[in-house]
Amino acid sequence: MYDYKGLNEECGLFGIWNHNEAAHLTYMGLQSLQHRGQEGAGIVASNNEELVGERGLGLLTEAISEQSLESLKSFGHAIGHVRYATSGNKGIENIQPFLYHFYDMSVAVCHNGNLINAQSLRQELEEQGSIFHSSSDTEVIMHLIRKSRAATFEEALKESLRTIKGGFTFALLTKDALYGAVDPNAIRPLVIGQLQTGEYVLASETCAIDVLGGEFVRDIHAGEYVVINDEGVRVESYTHETTTAISAMEYIYFARPDSTIAGKNVHAVRKITGKRLAQESPAAHADMVIGVPNSSLSAATGYAEELNLPYEMGLVKNQYIARTFIQPTQALREQGVRVKLSAVKDIVHGKNIVLVDDSIVRGTTCKRIVRLLKDAGANEVHVRIASPEFMFPSFYGIDVSTTAELISAHKSPDEIKTYIGAESLAYLSVDGLIESIGIDEEEPYSGLCVESFTGDYPAGLYDYEARFNANLSERQQAFLTSNKQYFDRKGNQYV
Amino acid sequence: MYDYKGLNEECGLFGIWNHNEAAHLTYMGLQSLQHRGQEGAGIVASNNEELVGERGLGLLTEAISEQSLESLKSFGHAIGHVRYATSGNKGIENIQPFLYHFYDMSVAVCHNGNLINAQSLRQELEEQGSIFHSSSDTEVIMHLIRKSRAATFEEALKESLRTIKGGFTFALLTKDALYGAVDPNAIRPLVIGQLQTGEYVLASETCAIDVLGGEFVRDIHAGEYVVINDEGVRVESYTHETTTAISAMEYIYFARPDSTIAGKNVHAVRKITGKRLAQESPAAHADMVIGVPNSSLSAATGYAEELNLPYEMGLVKNQYIARTFIQPTQALREQGVRVKLSAVKDIVHGKNIVLVDDSIVRGTTCKRIVRLLKDAGANEVHVRIASPEFMFPSFYGIDVSTTAELISAHKSPDEIKTYIGAESLAYLSVDGLIESIGIDEEEPYSGLCVESFTGDYPAGLYDYEARFNANLSERQQAFLTSNKQYFDRKGNQYV
Amino acid sequence: MYDYKGLNEECGLFGIWNHNEAAHLTYMGLQSLQHRGQEGAGIVASNNEELVGERGLGLLTEAISEQSLESLKSFGHAIGHVRYATSGNKGIENIQPFLYHFYDMSVAVCHNGNLINAQSLRQELEEQGSIFHSSSDTEVIMHLIRKSRAATFEEALKESLRTIKGGFTFALLTKDALYGAVDPNAIRPLVIGQLQTGEYVLASETCAIDVLGGEFVRDIHAGEYVVINDEGVRVESYTHETTTAISAMEYIYFARPDSTIAGKNVHAVRKITGKRLAQESPAAHADMVIGVPNSSLSAATGYAEELNLPYEMGLVKNQYIARTFIQPTQALREQGVRVKLSAVKDIVHGKNIVLVDDSIVRGTTCKRIVRLLKDAGANEVHVRIASPEFMFPSFYGIDVSTTAELISAHKSPDEIKTYIGAESLAYLSVDGLIESIGIDEEEPYSGLCVESFTGDYPAGLYDYEARFNANLSERQQAFLTSNKQYFDRKGNQYV
Amino acid sequence: MYDYKGLNEECGLFGIWNHNEAAHLTYMGLQSLQHRGQEGAGIVASNNEELVGERGLGLLTEAISEQSLESLKSFGHAIGHVRYATSGNKGIENIQPFLYHFYDMSVAVCHNGNLINAQSLRQELEEQGSIFHSSSDTEVIMHLIRKSRAATFEEALKESLRTIKGGFTFALLTKDALYGAVDPNAIRPLVIGQLQTGEYVLASETCAIDVLGGEFVRDIHAGEYVVINDEGVRVESYTHETTTAISAMEYIYFARPDSTIAGKNVHAVRKITGKRLAQESPAAHADMVIGVPNSSLSAATGYAEELNLPYEMGLVKNQYIARTFIQPTQALREQGVRVKLSAVKDIVHGKNIVLVDDSIVRGTTCKRIVRLLKDAGANEVHVRIASPEFMFPSFYGIDVSTTAELISAHKSPDEIKTYIGAESLAYLSVDGLIESIGIDEEEPYSGLCVESFTGDYPAGLYDYEARFNANLSERQQAFLTSNKQYFDRKGNQYV
Repeated sequence: MYDYKGLNEECGLFGIWNHNEAAHLTYMGLQSLQHRGQEGAGIVASNNEELVGERGLGLLTEAISEQSLESLKSFGHAIGHVRYATSGNKGIENIQPFLYHFYDMSVAVCHNGNLINAQSLRQELEEQGSIFHSSSDTEVIMHLIRKSRAATFEEALKESLRTIKGGFTFALLTKDALYGAVDPNAIRPLVIGQLQTGEYVLASETCAIDVLGGEFVRDIHAGEYVVINDEGVRVESYTHETTTAISAMEYIYFARPDSTIAGKNVHAVRKITGKRLAQESPAAHADMVIGVPNSSLSAATGYAEELNLPYEMGLVKNQYIARTFIQPTQALREQGVRVKLSAVKDIVHGKNIVLVDDSIVRGTTCKRIVRLLKDAGANEVHVRIASPEFMFPSFYGIDVSTTAELISAHKSPDEIKTYIGAESLAYLSVDGLIESIGIDEEEPYSGLCVESFTGDYPAGLYDYEARFNANLSERQQAFLTSNKQYFDRKGNQYV
Repeated sequence: MYDYKGLNEECGLFGIWNHNEAAHLTYMGLQSLQHRGQEGAGIVASNNEELVGERGLGLLTEAISEQSLESLKSFGHAIGHVRYATSGNKGIENIQPFLYHFYDMSVAVCHNGNLINAQSLRQELEEQGSIFHSSSDTEVIMHLIRKSRAATFEEALKESLRTIKGGFTFALLTKDALYGAVDPNAIRPLVIGQLQTGEYVLASETCAIDVLGGEFVRDIHAGEYVVINDEGVRVESYTHETTTAISAMEYIYFARPDSTIAGKNVHAVRKITGKRLAQESPAAHADMVIGVPNSSLSAATGYAEELNLPYEMGLVKNQYIARTFIQPTQALREQGVRVKLSAVKDIVHGKNIVLVDDSIVRGTTCKRIVRLLKDAGANEVHVRIASPEFMFPSFYGIDVSTTAELISAHKSPDEIKTYIGAESLAYLSVDGLIESIGIDEEEPYSGLCVESFTGDYPAGLYDYEARFNANLSERQQAFLTSNKQYFDRKGNQYV
Repeated sequence: MYDYKGLNEECGLFGIWNHNEAAHLTYMGLQSLQHRGQEGAGIVASNNEELVGERGLGLLTEAISEQSLESLKSFGHAIGHVRYATSGNKGIENIQPFLYHFYDMSVAVCHNGNLINAQSLRQELEEQGSIFHSSSDTEVIMHLIRKSRAATFEEALKESLRTIKGGFTFALLTKDALYGAVDPNAIRPLVIGQLQTGEYVLASETCAIDVLGGEFVRDIHAGEYVVINDEGVRVESYTHETTTAISAMEYIYFARPDSTIAGKNVHAVRKITGKRLAQESPAAHADMVIGVPNSSLSAATGYAEELNLPYEMGLVKNQYIARTFIQPTQALREQGVRVKLSAVKDIVHGKNIVLVDDSIVRGTTCKRIVRLLKDAGANEVHVRIASPEFMFPSFYGIDVSTTAELISAHKSPDEIKTYIGAESLAYLSVDGLIESIGIDEEEPYSGLCVESFTGDYPAGLYDYEARFNANLSERQQAFLTSNKQYFDRKGNQYV
Repeated sequence: MYDYKGLNEECGLFGIWNHNEAAHLTYMGLQSLQHRGQEGAGIVASNNEELVGERGLGLLTEAISEQSLESLKSFGHAIGHVRYATSGNKGIENIQPFLYHFYDMSVAVCHNGNLINAQSLRQELEEQGSIFHSSSDTEVIMHLIRKSRAATFEEALKESLRTIKGGFTFALLTKDALYGAVDPNAIRPLVIGQLQTGEYVLASETCAIDVLGGEFVRDIHAGEYVVINDEGVRVESYTHETTTAISAMEYIYFARPDSTIAGKNVHAVRKITGKRLAQESPAAHADMVIGVPNSSLSAATGYAEELNLPYEMGLVKNQYIARTFIQPTQALREQGVRVKLSAVKDIVHGKNIVLVDDSIVRGTTCKRIVRLLKDAGANEVHVRIASPEFMFPSFYGIDVSTTAELISAHKSPDEIKTYIGAESLAYLSVDGLIESIGIDEEEPYSGLCVESFTGDYPAGLYDYEARFNANLSERQQAFLTSNKQYFDRKGNQYV
């Protein structure tokens, strides 16, 4: 049986049609999406006749050499992918885009997110004699397309998109067209941009369009797919059974601060959550506000501004450390934490500090940071989390998916406060989060997917359902019972 | 003839005596000093009998594998080095520490800074039949020591330190002791720390002590050297002809914000320069303050706080890009800038912005950043530089050493404002800088080396003198003539 | 459309069941089979629960590191593969064994030879929605097995073996058993051996058994397969429609001289062909006999002994050159030949030489060697080829498969003699070859596959038939017409 | 103290002046000299203005990439080096040519052989303050040249060559000329060749000239050096105190069979030693003669021809194994031998065999080969060694230099016969060796250096003398006492 953790992937997609520097621009686009995945990267390029690809492990600069990139120079269309480092499935054969050569056509495909019915679809296909070559969900859609009896590739793609469930975006390339698709809840983002010279691009985040000096055209909405070919760009729906539920985690943690999702700039959203958090849980007597670098800095400045407290660089992140050795002794491991993040003694010594972080998952990192500050002489440390309690696993493409590892599934804020050694601990409320982002008032949760905070899964659970129910903690069960209002709020809760 | 650029090096040193994890701790110490050099790294370890070393090109994690580090495990003493990527001299043979095996002893040596009489010493030594194996200044001191007729290694070292000129620190390791030394002006920093378990360490910056959970003991002052051996730590002077002149550039640009040099925390100093800059050149009508990541963020928050302006993350630095390919076309090169740094459209659009940067050297980077902001829709961009005009080359270990490339050697602030396309441009005054840092009121410039802003070189020019004088621009000459007050201020100007 | 050349592969297989050093022994076995393939290598090991694999490009020592091999240490069963460098299909994804993880079982498979109906089977399978991930024939059998409705894996394997055509051997590993199989003509070899400690091994050649100090048990005959599991070894037939036709090329060129195929030692066979060649085409007035290193040395000593001529080392092969750069100029390319092979001036100068080679394919290599000898001062060069004229392409796993490139398909021996610049040229007769090897008098051609010399294909042509017939040269057509006796000799010609 | 083993090096040199493909031809020349060293390789090229170099570890193809070679393309002069894998001193910093940049000139130098007074010269130089950067002898000559007060580089070179002792050849490159030099006994070889286009080359063996299609011009004799520059080639003597004593080991073991040293082709010499050995120690009743591949094959064919016995390929060497892993268990190690060398069962089974090998050093290899043959069923194995008993260490550049490891220093042939498990054992006599090669009847030992067989060292012992005398075994002492005739034969013994 598959462990459910290994299946989850947060990744970045990019695609471009008809540019004489297609592979180079894809490389640049992927560089700006590198924060979405550092395990490996790949590019497949096409020239209306054949598709060829390059891929490798590690950061983009390690995965694709200058020479590899040069070899794709004469190809006018391309898609690319950066892959997140999950614990298992690390081989080169899992690095996307996957490139398939059939007797009648070639197709490249890459994927962001997680299919929640992949396991059952896979078994069904294997029972019919299909052979899978990777442990990736991405292969499933290719098998569905090839098994389809639909008349055209586009029809087969639509049929297949209706079969799969979960939070996902896809980019596909054939010699005739570039395709993009978004799940029926738009949980994971995909946008269309246009370069100054007119060509269209697809990207997981708008920052990849900005990097190329292009203009944002539109988000691909829930249940939509796009076809970009020599005739231009065409967006259609493969299903109308949609509910917009954009992953709140994109705003809180994943996306780059300069990206804009569904019209909301990520940095601005974070700053607002920081302000709202300050209103909800002020620590006005503190001497300064410190953010955990890098994703919590925006929220920290918001918190500081709201309470008119000084915002200080009390924690310094070592910007050169991508990975570090496993240290041989406990003493060295303790010091290993300090190598990545240091507290600035001269700033924090004797001070009462508000520490703003974006989330608490296992609690171990937060505990270490509080200790770092205390070791550096901080007097009080008041932890403020710019998102609600992370109580439920995500199955839509975030690498946190077991109840066991979520501290909030088992402990109250007060217990966690004690565990991490802080003077106080407060979270942003679910309403605070939703109102800070606020995408679409007509949809549940204003168009957000907040499953990790509420246990309300917009795309359902499918293969994960039995396991989810069997593993519910007491605290999770109590929450689900007592917080019925979340599901009932607008009379159209997901489940 | 040597180009003078290639000689300059900013580097990081670390040393430890008598710890059963000496090499591992050196590795961690070097990781925290990685910002001082990314070209290569090395560690030499000793066990009272032999010295062995490991070194390599690239970041520490590339240069020294886990296996290499393991091979040094049983050695109780170590020194290490990270090296800055200068344009020339890139081979592995230039990576330090240099390890010498003589018939009578072995010595490892590494170095930070630049010797300004290295070229003449080298020629003198070669004329006597000495053979140099690298293009590094560091070899010079080893030759001097070996040529010395002094009775002991320590005496030979002292004699050699008196012979060399410039801004430098050294760490040396023999089987008997660990040595550190600082130039007669203390231009480059070196500090002593002590671990909780009692062992002594040497490091270029205090952040390397903090990383190990150690305590700062003292700075090594101008003209001092330190001997650490089984008997403890002993600091002595090799010369009493000293004038403290700590490089202001360490505060402005090089050092990590969590380091403390001569009692002044770097982040705190930067924030104060930002406040002082706001007092000297306010842009109070602006909508927000943006700092250029990462070194200008502290100054930017200081500027913002002083004027009570919002501090925003209007520029996002791609944290995964250590290096990027040379792009084949001009269009791609332009976009290459955006890959490293992006402006956040939703934040800057339509806004009047104060852009705080730490320095302007050639002006090209600043010009690109202003354009990035304008392209993203910024209305006005007011550039504020948290240091004075960079008018004169440095010869004491900074990789900026030709007059030709310094825009302020040729253009006035007003001309530069036009060149970079900003609405206004202002620099911190020299007095502002000195008063913001303020180390020692008894010394010229309060104990700072501000040669790049005043043309007043505390350690003299030696091999560079003829070339310096021959290449003075009109603007430099005018400055030197009209600003005699800098040299005369305390009646004891350097030259 | 697939070019037919790219499909052909000569490779080496090895398998072992239930030994506590299974992967290490597989590694050693593959080292002794390295002559059968240098493009890449892989090992899959199993421990009754899971299958894991390591593979890579290049020679075995490059493909599988000591660390990789160590990671397989605790697994008691293994199969391994070395792959021949064909012009296309060079990626890591083509390196075998292929390892498949299905919902119900895992299987590893590797293959030597060529399937001649792979292309039509592949298209048929793709039309049913199957997806292939490599360009290798090997995948076809896995798809056939998985598509099979047979009740057991063994039945599905038998059914699939009956479906595929060509010259092939397979090794397969599941958690329950090790399987080996040989084509219905035994064109490609596979043998069973037993170690001194009792464990069974499979190998393409007996040299791999000898290397491990084991004993040869038996050849796997035409149409047989073997199952090795905890119950022992069991050989069965999947078909009884068999005709033994062992590739004569294994004796002439491929196999190692210390291997024994169908009871005939390869070195001994080669020496006999040399003697027979001397009888058929003596050059008794010559001064010496020289063999082309390494595969023709045995035949050359046979030729020399038969005529009582001195056997000399007149050509020296550079044993360190696996591959060389493509030289930038024609002059350098000419010299490049000499880097690989040199004539010994002091031996050949002024001498009349018999040059024994194993075969002439394109004629270019032979021409260069004759010129090397002449340039070194040889007087006369009499070329003797220890096999018949290579007139027809092979489709059973040899990398020579187009009529266009076979010089004997177009030119007579006399024309070729002129082309290569020799004083005389003679080939071993087809009868001479058959009588020198002589495996089984009951079968056509005494149990040999001599298709390249006669155009008589024991396993038929299938996907290649149309192309073969369309491309017949005049000389080939004339041969097929006038040499009907080959097909009729024993009244049971193949086609 | 230096272990004396580590100092010894057998290497290959190449040089070329004024050819527009200088680096490419050097690469080809080094490929043909690869048998002289596989640890590393380097090339330094010059264009009359600057010298630049490329070097690396491993075989030439690993050490110097196509890209590295391309970078040297525009340089018209070059020298190159391949280095033998000795046990110590393995770093890249020991790979030659060494390239030195002085204030007044640049020089590259590389070296074959061993200096026997290097250690004392080194200490002397260090006492004067000189610094050595490698453990290689090669540096010594550079220091001597630079310390010299001679007026010209050529004079300084001559002076330095007179100071060093041992068996050596050097190649040096400056922007003005290419230099070669040979020790005063011509122990190690160096030859001059000329390409068809007129350019001159230097090489350790003639095979490197043949590879380029060039003509042999002359050997560089004892005490000579050569200068090749734009004016042509000029050979001179730096000393007239010379005695020709060419290393017999070059003929017996090191050199390639197609090379010619002092007018004697290596293969031909080996064949003659085989014939002489057959005359001295016939094994006429044997069934066949087998040579140990590759260096003993020539001698084996000579032995077989002399006695009219069949020469068989009874041992097969795996031509793909450059190195193999250290096997974890004794059983695997035993099998590891078979991976490199296999006995051909079908040939040797039940037979009486003459096994011809070139030498016995430690005896372990010979013992293993005898066992291989016996395990494969050989009846009797009669070992014949085509050189005399290897009784004394060599100090002139062969990697066998301690008495302890030489089995013949301690055991008689009869004892060794028992140790290796052979039915009989015989060596070529010293006279037999000398008469088989026979270079110059006027010199002792007919112009050969046979120190390993006689203990008579033509260049003396210097730094090794005390240790040599202190470690003499009883058998060595007895030999030296009773074989005075070797030293007295011509009245002009070396010592």
